[in-house]
Amino acid sequence: MSKIKDYALSDRGRLAYVWAKDHMRILTHSISLLAKSKPLKGITLGVCLQITKETSVLLVGAKELGAKVVACSGNPLTTQDDIAAFLVSKGIEVFAWSGQTKSEHDWCQNKVLSYKPDIITDDGGDLNTKAHFDRKFRLLKIIGGTEETTTGINRYLAMQNKGKLRYPIIAVNNAKTKTLFDNKYGTGQSTIDGYLRAMNLLFASKRTVVCGYGYLGKGVAQKCAGMGSKVIVTEVDPIKALEAHMDGFYVMPMSQAAKIGDIFITCTGMTDVIQKQHLLSMKNGAIVGNVGHFDVEIDSKFLLNQTVRQVRPNLDECILPNGKKIYLVSKGRVANLIASEGHPPEVMALSFSNQLYSILYVLKNHKKMKNLIYDVPKQIDNQVATDALNSMSVKIDRLSKKQIAYQENW
Amino acid sequence: MSKIKDYALSDRGRLAYVWAKDHMRILTHSISLLAKSKPLKGITLGVCLQITKETSVLLVGAKELGAKVVACSGNPLTTQDDIAAFLVSKGIEVFAWSGQTKSEHDWCQNKVLSYKPDIITDDGGDLNTKAHFDRKFRLLKIIGGTEETTTGINRYLAMQNKGKLRYPIIAVNNAKTKTLFDNKYGTGQSTIDGYLRAMNLLFASKRTVVCGYGYLGKGVAQKCAGMGSKVIVTEVDPIKALEAHMDGFYVMPMSQAAKIGDIFITCTGMTDVIQKQHLLSMKNGAIVGNVGHFDVEIDSKFLLNQTVRQVRPNLDECILPNGKKIYLVSKGRVANLIASEGHPPEVMALSFSNQLYSILYVLKNHKKMKNLIYDVPKQIDNQVATDALNSMSVKIDRLSKKQIAYQENW
Amino acid sequence: MSKIKDYALSDRGRLAYVWAKDHMRILTHSISLLAKSKPLKGITLGVCLQITKETSVLLVGAKELGAKVVACSGNPLTTQDDIAAFLVSKGIEVFAWSGQTKSEHDWCQNKVLSYKPDIITDDGGDLNTKAHFDRKFRLLKIIGGTEETTTGINRYLAMQNKGKLRYPIIAVNNAKTKTLFDNKYGTGQSTIDGYLRAMNLLFASKRTVVCGYGYLGKGVAQKCAGMGSKVIVTEVDPIKALEAHMDGFYVMPMSQAAKIGDIFITCTGMTDVIQKQHLLSMKNGAIVGNVGHFDVEIDSKFLLNQTVRQVRPNLDECILPNGKKIYLVSKGRVANLIASEGHPPEVMALSFSNQLYSILYVLKNHKKMKNLIYDVPKQIDNQVATDALNSMSVKIDRLSKKQIAYQENW
Amino acid sequence: MSKIKDYALSDRGRLAYVWAKDHMRILTHSISLLAKSKPLKGITLGVCLQITKETSVLLVGAKELGAKVVACSGNPLTTQDDIAAFLVSKGIEVFAWSGQTKSEHDWCQNKVLSYKPDIITDDGGDLNTKAHFDRKFRLLKIIGGTEETTTGINRYLAMQNKGKLRYPIIAVNNAKTKTLFDNKYGTGQSTIDGYLRAMNLLFASKRTVVCGYGYLGKGVAQKCAGMGSKVIVTEVDPIKALEAHMDGFYVMPMSQAAKIGDIFITCTGMTDVIQKQHLLSMKNGAIVGNVGHFDVEIDSKFLLNQTVRQVRPNLDECILPNGKKIYLVSKGRVANLIASEGHPPEVMALSFSNQLYSILYVLKNHKKMKNLIYDVPKQIDNQVATDALNSMSVKIDRLSKKQIAYQENW
Repeated sequence: MSKIKDYALSDRGRLAYVWAKDHMRILTHSISLLAKSKPLKGITLGVCLQITKETSVLLVGAKELGAKVVACSGNPLTTQDDIAAFLVSKGIEVFAWSGQTKSEHDWCQNKVLSYKPDIITDDGGDLNTKAHFDRKFRLLKIIGGTEETTTGINRYLAMQNKGKLRYPIIAVNNAKTKTLFDNKYGTGQSTIDGYLRAMNLLFASKRTVVCGYGYLGKGVAQKCAGMGSKVIVTEVDPIKALEAHMDGFYVMPMSQAAKIGDIFITCTGMTDVIQKQHLLSMKNGAIVGNVGHFDVEIDSKFLLNQTVRQVRPNLDECILPNGKKIYLVSKGRVANLIASEGHPPEVMALSFSNQLYSILYVLKNHKKMKNLIYDVPKQIDNQVATDALNSMSVKIDRLSKKQIAYQENW
Repeated sequence: MSKIKDYALSDRGRLAYVWAKDHMRILTHSISLLAKSKPLKGITLGVCLQITKETSVLLVGAKELGAKVVACSGNPLTTQDDIAAFLVSKGIEVFAWSGQTKSEHDWCQNKVLSYKPDIITDDGGDLNTKAHFDRKFRLLKIIGGTEETTTGINRYLAMQNKGKLRYPIIAVNNAKTKTLFDNKYGTGQSTIDGYLRAMNLLFASKRTVVCGYGYLGKGVAQKCAGMGSKVIVTEVDPIKALEAHMDGFYVMPMSQAAKIGDIFITCTGMTDVIQKQHLLSMKNGAIVGNVGHFDVEIDSKFLLNQTVRQVRPNLDECILPNGKKIYLVSKGRVANLIASEGHPPEVMALSFSNQLYSILYVLKNHKKMKNLIYDVPKQIDNQVATDALNSMSVKIDRLSKKQIAYQENW
Repeated sequence: MSKIKDYALSDRGRLAYVWAKDHMRILTHSISLLAKSKPLKGITLGVCLQITKETSVLLVGAKELGAKVVACSGNPLTTQDDIAAFLVSKGIEVFAWSGQTKSEHDWCQNKVLSYKPDIITDDGGDLNTKAHFDRKFRLLKIIGGTEETTTGINRYLAMQNKGKLRYPIIAVNNAKTKTLFDNKYGTGQSTIDGYLRAMNLLFASKRTVVCGYGYLGKGVAQKCAGMGSKVIVTEVDPIKALEAHMDGFYVMPMSQAAKIGDIFITCTGMTDVIQKQHLLSMKNGAIVGNVGHFDVEIDSKFLLNQTVRQVRPNLDECILPNGKKIYLVSKGRVANLIASEGHPPEVMALSFSNQLYSILYVLKNHKKMKNLIYDVPKQIDNQVATDALNSMSVKIDRLSKKQIAYQENW
Repeated sequence: MSKIKDYALSDRGRLAYVWAKDHMRILTHSISLLAKSKPLKGITLGVCLQITKETSVLLVGAKELGAKVVACSGNPLTTQDDIAAFLVSKGIEVFAWSGQTKSEHDWCQNKVLSYKPDIITDDGGDLNTKAHFDRKFRLLKIIGGTEETTTGINRYLAMQNKGKLRYPIIAVNNAKTKTLFDNKYGTGQSTIDGYLRAMNLLFASKRTVVCGYGYLGKGVAQKCAGMGSKVIVTEVDPIKALEAHMDGFYVMPMSQAAKIGDIFITCTGMTDVIQKQHLLSMKNGAIVGNVGHFDVEIDSKFLLNQTVRQVRPNLDECILPNGKKIYLVSKGRVANLIASEGHPPEVMALSFSNQLYSILYVLKNHKKMKNLIYDVPKQIDNQVATDALNSMSVKIDRLSKKQIAYQENW
């Protein structure tokens, strides 16, 4: 019943799956330990995640643990069609293909919910929100959800603040082993990757403007500096701004940064960060893109309403009324996923280990949980970190009894 | 009634005070705004802080705001005697001198408490702990305390867990504008400073072992790498260890690091980090020091019981039974304070702005507060960051109404 | 009479040419200034360069300056077929296509020489060497040559040492504005690009072994560290080894590095750097590739004689007799060119400005020149640097008369 | 017959000598190998070097090799008086003390030449120049000289260009193991050290202007960035300027940098780099200093003619006519030597190994040498690098026969 682009791509997808699996030992090790007891037996897992080779390792794993898995894509553009085909070949229901329209994307999400999932694993909050407010689905019996992104969590927070949450959601994104590593190191590298492919220009010698200095922005700023760029940071939070300033970056308002930047990367999760007036004040040839979740950070609509010509894969030349050429990466949508292959598998192994453990936690504990957003339990977070260190043969110290006693003394 | 080393040093102290004041504009600006209304009038402030030029700006400021100020030193060795003299000349009671014995240090703390302070500002927790458990002082009426260090807070946490706290304490250390900047950037630089003065050896070409990867360790590791060292990190927390590993540092247990390191810097707040067996396994010529609060991180006792000769200011050569020479910086006590001048004034301006605002907050709100440890209120933290950015002419963006609405939406 | 893969790719080639041209302002500015006087009129230019979008800007420019241009590729694998088609559409003779066999590559070089070029512009030394030693061509009247690479120059040096050079050759590679920028910054970035595309794994958390610490190796090491890798350097030159050690990298022999590295990048210009015994001692999963000119640095033959399977574009899995999987990037050939698009245009603009000025210099001065290797004249080098700074709006100081006098005094 | 400040300081000097000797194993190892054969027997060595603990290791070593050693200081301010006393106690003639006037400094140089040295080892070129042009000394029979600094070599180059050199001089400074390591890594660290002691302000958050991007400037810029500063570079050479720009630094003329910098460090070897008009345009509170050889880079005269007050050791507050306070480090003289202890011993071990080998080379080869400036022979340079790697237990690869053959082939 799946709907994907091309079932024939399954073999290519399998190759990518094997590559990812070989580099996600933390996750596959946990799956192999759990597979015998089939802890997810009888459960339908509704999934809205980026359909990538790394995700396929999680979904195939969930199936091996006994779940029925139904998946759509967290983003209308980013689905890797060979992976979708491979997943179907493994008995997973998939409703996803690359280059969807907004309404196709919506249709796919509805399809997933029509399978009446027990648990929802979401990336951005679309599926959980739909399960709360869409008439067709708001009577579904869902025991809990998990969420991959800051963006999704912010949406649930707004819902929680108004008392609207109707089942517990674990904020997988807030696990330190997710936020620190996926948002910072993963996106740091995949942003470099995506921009390099889209523009093939030198980072060194250029001023790169990084909008936002959360974990995402920190990772991106650090890696851009590592590639030789002069990094400028824009922020609205004074503490983060001060941190960027102390880390050696120039901090200034967007109105000023717009005039002097060569490359722009939005990392805020906020809307309206690079506005029409900023775009008009930019230098001829400026490159603009976004790695935050939604395509609202840049006024892409304005840009794409100009004279537009695709000059390279994932790069559109937009000629503004003032005659300047501004280049937009992947139409303002997550450049690190669309213009490259997304996070490396080692990073996703951390995130998805948290996802898997959190799904199991929800299943076991949902009756004791309230309709709130929960952090990933500390012991899961530590376990994932320990698994990761082991998988890379890194050894660390342990507190002695004497040290533990010292810690508890005053 | 003060007891200090030499009253004649007052003029030299004044010069240092002026230098610090000129570079602590955030703090002095706040003081000048508040000075007219004398908000601390009638209050006795008991202080246990490092007696440095930066501290003198806070203490003179508190006096200008109306307080009676009585101070001892947070550390028996680090008092700058010229500053102590200058403070006395400004009408502050001081019981502190450099090179105190443990019992002299204790006597000074008793002296401060004998003035029956209303509020205690502490660095390390000695004074607040004494006010709780020392028979002579446990009946003092204290409306609240503030604490500068992680070490102090950990002690109060242990007390709070056993229900022993008898007045509210604001954990100034936990303000982001304190922890992030003082612990990370301040100690990062002052550690380089202290070690350079103590050893005058090259950081580049050497392996520097940084024990602990909290804010302190992060700052130290980053600056050591910035000076060209190959940095090795030891940790007990798997998440921090993983972070260090992803930041490009080598992570290993101390037993292994001890054998290959050239320079050692403990940053843990924990006891027994570099033990006798580690010292015995080190290379001939290794340099060992501590920048954590207490001198318990290294087994200094063992070292100082060997054949010892001071070869440079703040550097002792200890010849071990196995014939190797190990060099100990400032007898295992906070090397960044003892072997250099401590944090630069700009960093202390952030910490002490939090201190000042927190003291005022306690005074105003203590009746509503419980006998618990409180974080610095978020609005104080943001205010200090904003003050700091202003003082350095750094401008940032503000959220628009549309953006605030977006944030609250789902 | 050209021979290329597909003439229909011309339009796609034109798009790439325009993108490159827009980002090679230094070069295109010079060309436009010179175009009127047609200084290369009557000259046949024989070219053996990587056929990329950047090269097309040089070759079309040379034609605009009056030359007849005949080109083959510096590498049998790297030709961009759309560019080749575009060049033909502009009236340039091209004998190049991607994926050539060794004998096809040789045939193309012969074709270029059959046009009896007056000047030869070479990349690696194949064409100039053939013009010296191949019976068919050794009577050609050639007034001079230029050379893009260290590898080529080393070959001519060997020839010069034996008195075999029969016309002057300008070592474009030795211009500081070539070596410093192309070899260091250009390859630094394009190596990251190529490896990211080939492997999609995290640089952070891994040990990357960089073989060779010349300009190439320095650039690669710096950028790998900038991406978070722990960099290990191997060298045979004690001064360069010491430099790497002082720059914070670990230095060790290949026999030792082979056992602990995760990623290997050869940058030496030497043969036999990673040998069979090194490959056998590597960890399972190690990734091995080369960015030096020839594919002799790694024992690729050994690897490609094992059980081999292509697991990703430009990445072959080779299963060794000991059961370990070793992954070889682009069959051991220049990974930064084959697995990505090669150097960014801004970098090539520097190299090719030196090429163009050097070709003009040979034409004007060849009668006064001896049959030797010449450095690019200092005034050309300075001019290119000044052009580059101007194109990026970077202003610098000039020596005053007083300062010049000071310089000449003692 | 020596003239120094205080003979009683000898014991303190000996302690410093031992510390240095223990960390200059490369040099002391060579000395111990040579000591038996007394190769310098009968030779008088005239020395004009900074009188530091590291220099004492060279001079005592030269004496152990048989030379009569007579020394004055390369700088009127920097002599370490305890070292001078120690040297005298070891039978070396010393004419040096800290805080000399210009005429005292001149007198000391004359004293050294009055001993009729056979070989002159110079730092800055004063002694060699005097031996050429001062009537009293121009008939001295000198067999050769060695020179430690770029500044000195530039002076001899001017002399050589006019045919005025009357004996060969080895440019020790030009050895890669000197220039790369002393100028770059040594001064990089000692500049941080000197400025930290002089100002005790934060490098992070500040704009540090580095004037000059030679080896010295590169080392300083890199270390300042490593301490968190935003680095601005000024240059007159377009290639170096481009390099700084590609390395991630901001490049601009001094007139512009003057207005926005917080800290200034001149590293040029040129006069008039920071001029009166620049000083007048600086921000209130700017810190200005020099680490180049002579005190001509900053218009210190102008600054020291204002209202001046010493606010910290080696830091003068100068109140300009426009009311701004500008702070001058160590009166514009080599801040890294005066405000700190100078280069670490490990770095000086490289320089002084080159010195020692060069002195021996002059002695052995002077009859074959012309009156020219000579580079340190390549085999000496390689030997010093190899000695250094050995002393730090760093192992490297060697070229195989096959590789050497490959290198010589075309």
